[in-house]
Amino acid sequence: MAEKLKIIPLGGLNEIGKNITIYECHGDIIVVDCGMGFPDDEMYGIDVVIPDFTYLVKNKNRVRAVVLTHGHEDHIGGLPYLLREVNVPIYATRMTAGLVEIKLEEHKLLDKAEIITVEPGEFITAGSFEVEFIHVNHSVVGSVALAIHTPLGCVIHTGDYKIDTTPISEEMIDLARLGELGKQGVLAMLADSTNVENPGYSVSERSVGEEIDAHFDGCKERIIVTTFASNVHRIQQVINASARHKRRVGITGRSMENVIKVATKLGYLKIPDGVLMDMTQIKGLPKDKVTIITTGSQGEPMSAMYRMAFSGHKQVEIGPGDKIIISASAIPGNEETVSHIINELFRRGANVIYGKQSDIHASGHACKEEMKIMLGLVKPKFFIPVHGEHRHLRLHAELAKLMGINPKNIVIGEIGEVIEITSRSIKQNGTVPSGRVFVDGTGVGDVGSVVLRDRKHLAQDGMLVVVLSLSSEDGELVSGPDIITRGFIYVKESGDLIEELRSLVLTTLDNCKKNNIRDWVTIKASIKTDISAALYKLTKRSPMIIPVIMEV
Amino acid sequence: MAEKLKIIPLGGLNEIGKNITIYECHGDIIVVDCGMGFPDDEMYGIDVVIPDFTYLVKNKNRVRAVVLTHGHEDHIGGLPYLLREVNVPIYATRMTAGLVEIKLEEHKLLDKAEIITVEPGEFITAGSFEVEFIHVNHSVVGSVALAIHTPLGCVIHTGDYKIDTTPISEEMIDLARLGELGKQGVLAMLADSTNVENPGYSVSERSVGEEIDAHFDGCKERIIVTTFASNVHRIQQVINASARHKRRVGITGRSMENVIKVATKLGYLKIPDGVLMDMTQIKGLPKDKVTIITTGSQGEPMSAMYRMAFSGHKQVEIGPGDKIIISASAIPGNEETVSHIINELFRRGANVIYGKQSDIHASGHACKEEMKIMLGLVKPKFFIPVHGEHRHLRLHAELAKLMGINPKNIVIGEIGEVIEITSRSIKQNGTVPSGRVFVDGTGVGDVGSVVLRDRKHLAQDGMLVVVLSLSSEDGELVSGPDIITRGFIYVKESGDLIEELRSLVLTTLDNCKKNNIRDWVTIKASIKTDISAALYKLTKRSPMIIPVIMEV
Repeated sequence: MAEKLKIIPLGGLNEIGKNITIYECHGDIIVVDCGMGFPDDEMYGIDVVIPDFTYLVKNKNRVRAVVLTHGHEDHIGGLPYLLREVNVPIYATRMTAGLVEIKLEEHKLLDKAEIITVEPGEFITAGSFEVEFIHVNHSVVGSVALAIHTPLGCVIHTGDYKIDTTPISEEMIDLARLGELGKQGVLAMLADSTNVENPGYSVSERSVGEEIDAHFDGCKERIIVTTFASNVHRIQQVINASARHKRRVGITGRSMENVIKVATKLGYLKIPDGVLMDMTQIKGLPKDKVTIITTGSQGEPMSAMYRMAFSGHKQVEIGPGDKIIISASAIPGNEETVSHIINELFRRGANVIYGKQSDIHASGHACKEEMKIMLGLVKPKFFIPVHGEHRHLRLHAELAKLMGINPKNIVIGEIGEVIEITSRSIKQNGTVPSGRVFVDGTGVGDVGSVVLRDRKHLAQDGMLVVVLSLSSEDGELVSGPDIITRGFIYVKESGDLIEELRSLVLTTLDNCKKNNIRDWVTIKASIKTDISAALYKLTKRSPMIIPVIMEV
Repeated sequence: MAEKLKIIPLGGLNEIGKNITIYECHGDIIVVDCGMGFPDDEMYGIDVVIPDFTYLVKNKNRVRAVVLTHGHEDHIGGLPYLLREVNVPIYATRMTAGLVEIKLEEHKLLDKAEIITVEPGEFITAGSFEVEFIHVNHSVVGSVALAIHTPLGCVIHTGDYKIDTTPISEEMIDLARLGELGKQGVLAMLADSTNVENPGYSVSERSVGEEIDAHFDGCKERIIVTTFASNVHRIQQVINASARHKRRVGITGRSMENVIKVATKLGYLKIPDGVLMDMTQIKGLPKDKVTIITTGSQGEPMSAMYRMAFSGHKQVEIGPGDKIIISASAIPGNEETVSHIINELFRRGANVIYGKQSDIHASGHACKEEMKIMLGLVKPKFFIPVHGEHRHLRLHAELAKLMGINPKNIVIGEIGEVIEITSRSIKQNGTVPSGRVFVDGTGVGDVGSVVLRDRKHLAQDGMLVVVLSLSSEDGELVSGPDIITRGFIYVKESGDLIEELRSLVLTTLDNCKKNNIRDWVTIKASIKTDISAALYKLTKRSPMIIPVIMEV
C-alpha cells in the first residue's frame, strides 16, 4: 500500500473562525490550531461556536500533539473544549503559550495541560511528523508558519501571516527559510486566504505607529487608544509615542491587562520605567500627560471603552476634547456596535480618530501580492487555500493558477472532508463528522437546530400560551381558557383581542365535542390551527402557539 | 412679535433612514419627505420603522402639503402611514410621483391621494411657503433639492445629492441656481451628511457605465446584473451595454419590473426596440445573447437573484461561467446577507464581479469636497446638517466651520426638537412627540419596548412554562406541575433536568404552604425565583420563566 497523508480541515473553511486542521499519517495524528468562532445573526443566544471533535475523541489514542501557529481566539479558543476530551501536549511559541495559559486558567484546566514552548527555527517530533516553526509577521507576536515534515514530504501550513518589511520589535517573516524549503521541494501548502480580495500589499505596522505618533504631536488633551488586546506591536507603539511625549500610560480592560502582563513578563513588550501608572493616578495628572490603552475596539457593551463612553467606568468618563484613537477595524458582524460607540463619543464632544478618517490600523493578513510572493517562494506541488469564506478560497485558487500551479493540484475543501495526498496525487476521499457545535452558558452541544429554530420563531413574533383544564371524567372544561402572551402584543392595550381569542378557543372546544373528538393531541392541534389562522388574519403575525391542557 | 420659522426634523437625524422634516411659519405647515427606516438587530420581528406622526395629526388642519425630494424608501416609505391620518396634496417630480403611486397602490390608498407633479425649475405655493424645485444628481432620477421661500427668507433643503459632471440622460446638478440663490442670500440650509467621512469627490455614474461595458466586451457567457431597482441610470447603462453587444435583456424581480415600467412610461428610461425580452425566451438564446437585470443586490432571501442562486427561480439557475455583476454596495446591516449570496455564486462556479474587486458601483451621495462646494455656493447664514448618524452631523458641522460659517449659527438637532429661526437668530426651543414607531404585520405602533424586550429575552434563552392546577377550595395541588419549554433546551434529551425542575416546583409549593402563603401572585413569584436560580446554576442560562396557575 502506497503511503498516504490525510489532511482534514475541521473548521476555518467556507467560514470565518474556528480554524483547526488534522494531519494524519502512518496512524499518527497531529492537530494544527484549535479555534473558536462567534455566532452569526441566526444563532440566537449562542455564546461561541466550536468545532466538532468527534473524530479526534474517537481516535484519541492516535493524537500525538496539538501545534499552534499563534494566539488569536480563532486559532486557540476551542482548546479548553478539546482538552477536556483529548489531553495531549500542546506546542507553541512563548507568547502563544502565554495566551493559552490565560485561557486555560479561566476554564480551570491549566493544571492538567502540558504546554511546551518552542522558538521559531526549532523542530519538534510528534509520531511520524516533524514540525518546524518558521517566524512570520502577524498582528500578534510569536506567530509562526509550520513546515510539517511528513514521510511523504514537506507541507507548509502558513497560519495567519503578512509580509512586513519594517515590523516592530521583531524580524521580517522568514522568507529565506520558506524559499529554501521551496527549492528543496514542498509537497503541499495550506495558506491563509483572508485578504485575497485586497490588491497590492498590506500596510506595515511601522506606518501605523508613525500615524499614531503624529496624533500625539501637540495634543493637549487626554489620549485614549483602543485596539485588539493581543496586538502587542500596536500597544508597544502607543507606549513609545507616550514616552516620547512625556505621557504616562494607564491600562484598563481585563484582557488588555492580562496580555500586557504576559507580554511584559516574556520580554515581548518593553515599557520604559515610570511610564506605566495605575488608573487611579489619572485624576492627579494634567490632561496632556495622560494616555489610556483600553479594550473595546469592537464596541463590546461590557468593555472598558464602552463603560468610559456611557458613564460606567470607575476612573474615566469621556468628555469634550478627549482624543480617542480607535486603532482597529470592525470585525464583520460588529459594524453596528462599533458605529454605536463612535456616535456616542462624538456626542460627548470627543475628537474621534477612526477607520474611515485615518490610517491608524493595519491588517495582519497578507494581501494579493504577498500571497503571490508566498506561492512563488514555496512552489508547492499541491495547494489548498484555507482560512476564508468560499469566495476567498476560490479567488486564492485563481491566484495559485496564475502562479503556475497545475489546476488539477488545487483543492478547495469542505470542513470534515478528507483530503488524501500521495507523492503523486491529491483527492478528496470520504468525510469525518464535522460542523458547528454551539456553546450556550455551560452547555456544549445541547442547543441544536430545533432549539435555534424555536428561538428564531420566538424572536420574530413572540408566543401565546393557551391553558385550560379539562375534567378527567367527562372531558368538560373545568377552568380556562387562560391566554398568556410574551413578545407578541402589549396585552394591557389588547384586551379585546385576547377576549376574542378566548371565545375562539371555546368555539374550537365546542366543535371538537360535536365531532366527538376526545383525544387531547387532536384538541390541542385544533386550538393551534384555529388560533394561528385567526391571528394571522387579524394581525399578519404568526406567534408560536402553545396549547396546554391540564387533566383535573 | 417677531416672525419665526420653525424647523422640526421628525426623523433622519442621528439615525439612518425615515427622513422627514416639518417646516412651520405663520401657522402653516409643510412636510418635506416622509421616509421609513429598517429595523436594527435589536428590533426583533419588526418589519419597518416609521416616524411618530402625533404632531402632524394633532395639527392636521394646518398641514398644507407634503413635498418630496426623491423616490427612495427612506424619503417616501412612511407616506402610506401618514396619508391614512393626514391627507394633503403631495408634490413631487414625475419619477418620484411614479414611485409613490406604486407604493400607494400596494397599500390600496392611491384613489384617495392627491399627487401633483412638478418639473425642476417650477414653484408651488403651500400656505405661506413657496417651494422651488432644483435639479440635483442622485442615484434615482427626478431628484431635487428644494428652495423653500418663507416670509423670513430662503431655506435650501438639499435632499440627497451628489455633483455628477457627467451624468446619464440628465443634466448636471443645477449649481448655477444654487449659486444665484446664495448670492441673493440664503437664510438656512439643511444638507445631506451621509458620505461626509469620504474624502474627495464621488465617482460619476458614467465611469460605472464604462466599467460595466468593459465587462461585456468579449464575454461569451450570460451576464446577470443586480442593482437597486430605483437606479434607472444604472439600468439604462446596462441596457445600453447589452444593445451594443447585441444581447437581449430580461427583467426579473417585482420591484425591478415595476420601476422599469414606470421609468419607461415617463420617458426616463429609453430601451431600443427589440432589446427587451420576456424571461421565458431565455432558454432559446445562446448564452452570449442574454443579459438579465434583477433585484437582490442586498441578498434579500425572497429576491429574484437569491432564487436564481438557490435553485428557486422559474427560468434561471445560476451555473458555471455565468457572469454576475453586483452593481451596488451593501447597505449597513446587510453585509452578512450579501456575503452569503456571493459565496453561493462562487460555489456554483459563477464569475462574480462585486464591490471589493471592481469599480462597478457609485454612491449617490456627495463626498467631502462636493459638500464644500455646496456650502461655498449657498453660503447659508444658518446651517443644519441632516441625513446621518451623529458622527456624520458633527463632521459636516466641522466642514461648515471650515467654510466660514459662524459656529454659533450651526445647529446639530435631535429628532422632535424644534429649531426656531428668526432673521437674526437660531435656537433650539421645545420638542414635539417623536421617535420610532414600529410596524409589525398590520400593526402600527402596537409593538413597543416591552414586547421587544420580551422578544430579545426569548431569542437569547427561550422560555419555560410551569403550569399547575390548584383547588379553589383548599389550595391543594390538583394537577401538574407540567413543564413546557421552547428555545431553551432540547427536551427529548433533557428528561432528567425537567424531572428535577418538577420536583423543585413541588418543594416551592410545600414551602409556600408551610409559610401559609396562599395568594397566587406570591406563589407564582416564588416558583419563578426558585426555577430561575436553579437553572442559572445548572446551565448558566436565563430562559423566561412563566408560571401559570389554574383554579379548579
